Amino acid sequence: MTVQVLLPRGFRAAGYTCGIKASGKSDLALFVSDGPASAAGVFTTNRVCGAPVIVSRSRVPTGTARAVIINSGNSNAATGDPGIANAQRMTAVLAELLGCGPEDVLVCSTGVIGVPLPMPLLLEGIPQATRKLADDGQSLLDAATAMMTTDTFPKLSSLDLHLAGGGVRIAGVCKGAAMIAPNMATMLGVVMTDAVLTPAQCTELLRAGVDETFNCISVDGHMSTSDTVLLLASGASGVRPSIEDLALLGDGIRQVCQNLATSIIRDAEGADHFITVDVSGIVSREAAQRMARAICDSALVKTAITGGDPNWGRIVSAAGYSGVAFDPAWLSLRINGTEVYRAGTPAVFDAAAVSQGLKAQREVHLELRLSGGPESGDCAVRFWTSDLTAEYVRLNSEYTT
Amino acid sequence: MTVQVLLPRGFRAAGYTCGIKASGKSDLALFVSDGPASAAGVFTTNRVCGAPVIVSRSRVPTGTARAVIINSGNSNAATGDPGIANAQRMTAVLAELLGCGPEDVLVCSTGVIGVPLPMPLLLEGIPQATRKLADDGQSLLDAATAMMTTDTFPKLSSLDLHLAGGGVRIAGVCKGAAMIAPNMATMLGVVMTDAVLTPAQCTELLRAGVDETFNCISVDGHMSTSDTVLLLASGASGVRPSIEDLALLGDGIRQVCQNLATSIIRDAEGADHFITVDVSGIVSREAAQRMARAICDSALVKTAITGGDPNWGRIVSAAGYSGVAFDPAWLSLRINGTEVYRAGTPAVFDAAAVSQGLKAQREVHLELRLSGGPESGDCAVRFWTSDLTAEYVRLNSEYTT
Repeated sequence: MTVQVLLPRGFRAAGYTCGIKASGKSDLALFVSDGPASAAGVFTTNRVCGAPVIVSRSRVPTGTARAVIINSGNSNAATGDPGIANAQRMTAVLAELLGCGPEDVLVCSTGVIGVPLPMPLLLEGIPQATRKLADDGQSLLDAATAMMTTDTFPKLSSLDLHLAGGGVRIAGVCKGAAMIAPNMATMLGVVMTDAVLTPAQCTELLRAGVDETFNCISVDGHMSTSDTVLLLASGASGVRPSIEDLALLGDGIRQVCQNLATSIIRDAEGADHFITVDVSGIVSREAAQRMARAICDSALVKTAITGGDPNWGRIVSAAGYSGVAFDPAWLSLRINGTEVYRAGTPAVFDAAAVSQGLKAQREVHLELRLSGGPESGDCAVRFWTSDLTAEYVRLNSEYTT
Repeated sequence: MTVQVLLPRGFRAAGYTCGIKASGKSDLALFVSDGPASAAGVFTTNRVCGAPVIVSRSRVPTGTARAVIINSGNSNAATGDPGIANAQRMTAVLAELLGCGPEDVLVCSTGVIGVPLPMPLLLEGIPQATRKLADDGQSLLDAATAMMTTDTFPKLSSLDLHLAGGGVRIAGVCKGAAMIAPNMATMLGVVMTDAVLTPAQCTELLRAGVDETFNCISVDGHMSTSDTVLLLASGASGVRPSIEDLALLGDGIRQVCQNLATSIIRDAEGADHFITVDVSGIVSREAAQRMARAICDSALVKTAITGGDPNWGRIVSAAGYSGVAFDPAWLSLRINGTEVYRAGTPAVFDAAAVSQGLKAQREVHLELRLSGGPESGDCAVRFWTSDLTAEYVRLNSEYTT
């Protein structure tokens, strides 16, 4: 996971320990572009959002950024006007050290909700962190590690692309293990590339990439107050993508986003299973997403998989209440390749064998298909989720977020 | 709970053991009106619904019914065309014994999904059950008991009303402990009254009553395939309500529905807490319901309460992603009477005392109030939910529904 992940040209990163976390683990991450980078961001649609979301969302429309500053251990959410002042101050302090304006710095925070940021620790830590900025893979790993809260491993992904115009690199980091049910964006993620991109291109590529990745995962159906994914393009490769190259670059950004998003599911709190949900034959992508999300958010579907129970009734009934119009007579379901429900009626299958498979392996594949009827169509989506275990309940009844 | 619950005049009930359940517990309930009763029903909006829902929904528009037949232990859902034939056959057998047409009998089933009904057991059991029909409280208790699946106690409620035109009685029964997230109706419920009502009045009183009770509870956010609530009015009291009496009768039906619906939450699988959620100051009832439901369906809110954690951040953030537009600067929250969040900022409160209260008592009261701003209004709703425990996970990873 953590090997061979390299920064794109024109970027430096750092991780540092300010002392925000009682555990003494690192809590401050910096991502800095040598010059003004084209920038785009997508943010939580939660009405109760963190102060950093409010500040960063107001700055993204400028289309460029020099840096991203992220602290973990405190989300600076639901902290009122003093929280906004603190988020602005974090960016101003870093901006002065980098020699740019505060509006060129984007900010994210993650951790406990409703507690004022410990500003003295941050004011002392930010200058220290800038001294650690470097352009190697270790610095990126340090930064990814400093973003973690209940994550058990840092989440990084990078990709080298050979475009017609030359080689470019994409690298991304993210964090998250619970309060995962994104809409527009999820958790904290930073994606960087050294391709030459306009701000409008950044926005388009990021939105498209996030829509099929970060917006297709769910741990517990609870949308965070802090969800943010940012894309920065330094242009340091000198490669200005052609129209064809832009499609390749978009695929690459989507792939990096997918690697990051699925790593969140692999690290889902207390989870025993990694569940891939394919929904197909649906009239619109939006309807397919709604159906997949209903399945991914069902506690009864999740606990059935925890128990190794091929309980297809819970899965098709979740599809049934998703709000999507369909005739069950055209609906079929496979669990790990075995057809368990065919055209609206129970299929004959070896339940013991399917149960054995669910118990023996961590990966689970659910395929729900509408194969006809007036309400069917050509749209398909893939979602990812985790199961629901007693360990999830223990973690979340004992930990304050 | 089970004392002093009496049948309205003109009704008989019975419970019987056909042998559908491996446990050997009773599994067949009958509710019979001496003559044609005015009838109304509300049903699950799940696209994947049980065969009995399809059959009963098609019969309710006739406006009258003689009987309701309910089996537990098998939901006859996702069973295709043979399932519909089996549901029709159940009604035909009872209709012949009662001397009415099959279309005068409504049918409900609850239990495992996707398994054919054991028809030989039912065909033998239905005549036996009719011999036990009686108009006393014990028969109503027997019928309520025969509807149970994972319920730990039978759910009954009755009320005597003194209208201007004379005395009438309302009695109701229901079942349910999981797969509870109703929309239009929930689980199985039968409400009976001896008032003289037209079918249109039945429909109006049932819809209004259910909307504020059964439609305001959630255990796990998973809408059942079998949700049904029926209202039968025998007219045997001879009391034909005036306009004023109709309002009183509506209140009475709502009260019986509320007693039944909250008893489902008191029996929620694995739950340690009974949570009442009041949302107020909202622009529309629909918006207030959406906000309350988001809070009730959040695994993070539920596990916080399980852990005795006054974690208001999880509660206000669930309101924030409910899809309802509001400005958090006008939002306040009380937990068990203590203000923990005021006008968008954390309130100073004794967290240890609130936590102690959550741990010491089963009842929890959450009050979320929007007290101003352009998006506020006069609407309020009350919802009821349960917490999420490791025991819920254990029950639902070991039990096939």
